[in-house]
Amino acid sequence: MLLDKFKEMAAFQAELRDRKLKAFGAVTEELLSATEGVVEGRRVILAGTNNYLGLSADPRCIEAAREATSRWGTGTTGSRLANGSFSEHQALEAELAAFFGVGHAITFSTGYAATMGTCATLAGPGDVILLDADSHSSIYSGVKLSGAEVIRYRHSDPADLAKRLRRLGDRAANTLIVAEGIYSMLGDIAPLQEIADLKRQYGAMLLVDEAHSLGVLGERGRGAAEAAGVEDAVDFIVGTFSKSLGGIGGYCVSQHAELEDVRYCIRAYIFTASPTPSVVASTRRALQILRDEPELREQLWDNARRLYDGLKALGLAVGPAPSPVVAVEFEDREAAMAAWQQLFDNGVYVNLVVPPASPSTNYLLRNSMSAAHTAEQVDRIIGAYRDLIDAGLVTPSAA
Amino acid sequence: MLLDKFKEMAAFQAELRDRKLKAFGAVTEELLSATEGVVEGRRVILAGTNNYLGLSADPRCIEAAREATSRWGTGTTGSRLANGSFSEHQALEAELAAFFGVGHAITFSTGYAATMGTCATLAGPGDVILLDADSHSSIYSGVKLSGAEVIRYRHSDPADLAKRLRRLGDRAANTLIVAEGIYSMLGDIAPLQEIADLKRQYGAMLLVDEAHSLGVLGERGRGAAEAAGVEDAVDFIVGTFSKSLGGIGGYCVSQHAELEDVRYCIRAYIFTASPTPSVVASTRRALQILRDEPELREQLWDNARRLYDGLKALGLAVGPAPSPVVAVEFEDREAAMAAWQQLFDNGVYVNLVVPPASPSTNYLLRNSMSAAHTAEQVDRIIGAYRDLIDAGLVTPSAA
Repeated sequence: MLLDKFKEMAAFQAELRDRKLKAFGAVTEELLSATEGVVEGRRVILAGTNNYLGLSADPRCIEAAREATSRWGTGTTGSRLANGSFSEHQALEAELAAFFGVGHAITFSTGYAATMGTCATLAGPGDVILLDADSHSSIYSGVKLSGAEVIRYRHSDPADLAKRLRRLGDRAANTLIVAEGIYSMLGDIAPLQEIADLKRQYGAMLLVDEAHSLGVLGERGRGAAEAAGVEDAVDFIVGTFSKSLGGIGGYCVSQHAELEDVRYCIRAYIFTASPTPSVVASTRRALQILRDEPELREQLWDNARRLYDGLKALGLAVGPAPSPVVAVEFEDREAAMAAWQQLFDNGVYVNLVVPPASPSTNYLLRNSMSAAHTAEQVDRIIGAYRDLIDAGLVTPSAA
Repeated sequence: MLLDKFKEMAAFQAELRDRKLKAFGAVTEELLSATEGVVEGRRVILAGTNNYLGLSADPRCIEAAREATSRWGTGTTGSRLANGSFSEHQALEAELAAFFGVGHAITFSTGYAATMGTCATLAGPGDVILLDADSHSSIYSGVKLSGAEVIRYRHSDPADLAKRLRRLGDRAANTLIVAEGIYSMLGDIAPLQEIADLKRQYGAMLLVDEAHSLGVLGERGRGAAEAAGVEDAVDFIVGTFSKSLGGIGGYCVSQHAELEDVRYCIRAYIFTASPTPSVVASTRRALQILRDEPELREQLWDNARRLYDGLKALGLAVGPAPSPVVAVEFEDREAAMAAWQQLFDNGVYVNLVVPPASPSTNYLLRNSMSAAHTAEQVDRIIGAYRDLIDAGLVTPSAA
């Protein structure tokens, strides 16, 4: 029977119900701000969103979305290639290209479609894709659809990437290297300088997914490639509207004029209804704010450093450097689940991440910061982790 | 070089530019209603949308979207499994399940993700997927990602499907049959009674994509399965919010409780930001209207029959029966392109469909009707086709 394969998941879901653990898909009943809401009946600090700049709740973005809905309707009811290209889509694409300082941009209806569609189309049978082993699900789906030979390199390991490029010989010229700017689960930043050097040395092409780094890294907020000073070496940047820009959708930008032809070959673009007027308008406004108000980025980093330093001072197993995503690793499944519940009961809502979504076999409590968090909220989050230690749910390793 | 593979598309795009043919991605500069707009500087009747009930422009849906944006923000900035489950998503799922008379529903951020994600997850290695050869791109992507053995049956041909089921022997019990309610390019309706009989006979499971039939077919507007009286035999129904419901997104509904476990295994659901508050609210309102105002469906069919009868009376090569999608087939590429241009110049904007998007090697002018079209608009469309005949761009075959 087809449905037999879901018995393991059914058992896991039954366990969660027995424990009354709402870690996956807890229902938000009311949003009080970008950083506070009522979730499953409890007022909590939202510390597990990707709302890095808090823009989903920005009154200017909300007003732009409302106006566009009145003017253009609730949806486009068509693909960009049929009746779904509105002048607003073109304007957003032009603004994205200008923001990144390149000539070409494509918008997509989800970030998943942007990454998947681009990877699936740029490489094909006879080509090679070299991808970071910890890549996002959308990248894995894309490379599987591409028909290219897929080779994984060890996560953020330039030496391993170099070895694999060397082995490819002449085929390196037909290779697409795929990396992410910031990896979403642990918040670590890719070594893009080294990866860009290798890309140039072997004559491959490079695609970087800036989903978690747009508006977060770089002097102008363009992402990890800007921060590393290697934008010239990046052939394709993909990303999303659903994190720092507060909407939904995604993009691919490129210095290569061929992107305008690639556009017509991406099936997830051709055969999907185009982004709604609401989202296009709020995203355009959010991109302006991201560009014109670098103080939001500074505020985000102030919060990120405050949380990182606070959790590290408690002796918790955080990563090697501050990042808007601060993950606390647990080796013990029971402790991770109990810790999530205690944090929630104490009014702090974070993400519980379990294998295979986590990049190792470990369990994570993933905390993500927003420019909209106050210092007092960050301190309350740190205090809730201190209570976990007091309750014996996590043992300080280096306090 | 990776980009060499796009040279053929580049040549086609250059040809379109030389011809000044804007058939693919013409820019809508102003929407005057669900059925009229200014496209590339010309005021036109929109006769190539999927806006079957005209609801993208319904003031009630627009107001619901605006209110939800004020209350909940421009996006959820998270997956349903993280921070992106709002009470509104749950409400929409409950209303979809109730509308279809089943127990379970999942919503997705695009229709593409709904179909792809469901197909990719329900069947896996060791299973078989039997799919109609003319299936939508999202189905093809899904079955490729599934890892199942994929076997195509001849388009809407129960005898061919029966032959392939017979050959599978015991494996038929591990088989997912995939069909669409209405096929989007020619507007033809699947023979679901025969397919349902075969499904029962061989003990397979059946998934039907009602993307183009929700709100269009069936006494309550549930789609082709309702119209055929075989809802009990359909294990999974998938569909979209971006056609009859005027938004963007998709759903899977099922009578099987296991859908609640399947939910947590669909990667395009787990790893995508959830639908925006705007879209969830407009879709909820649109579903109410679809349910409570069957006269919209009658109006759609009046328009569909009027267009079909009119084009048929002109002797044009339309399909065997009326449908909200009426396609006119051309064997001559030049004539199809010239005909699209003349229709546009005469104020009628339809879809030009070229291989491989069209199901054969033919070129199509695809016309789609809306409940919002007036009889006068339909007559103007028919008149524009009469002008094509007068101009010698298409030859009547049976007039």
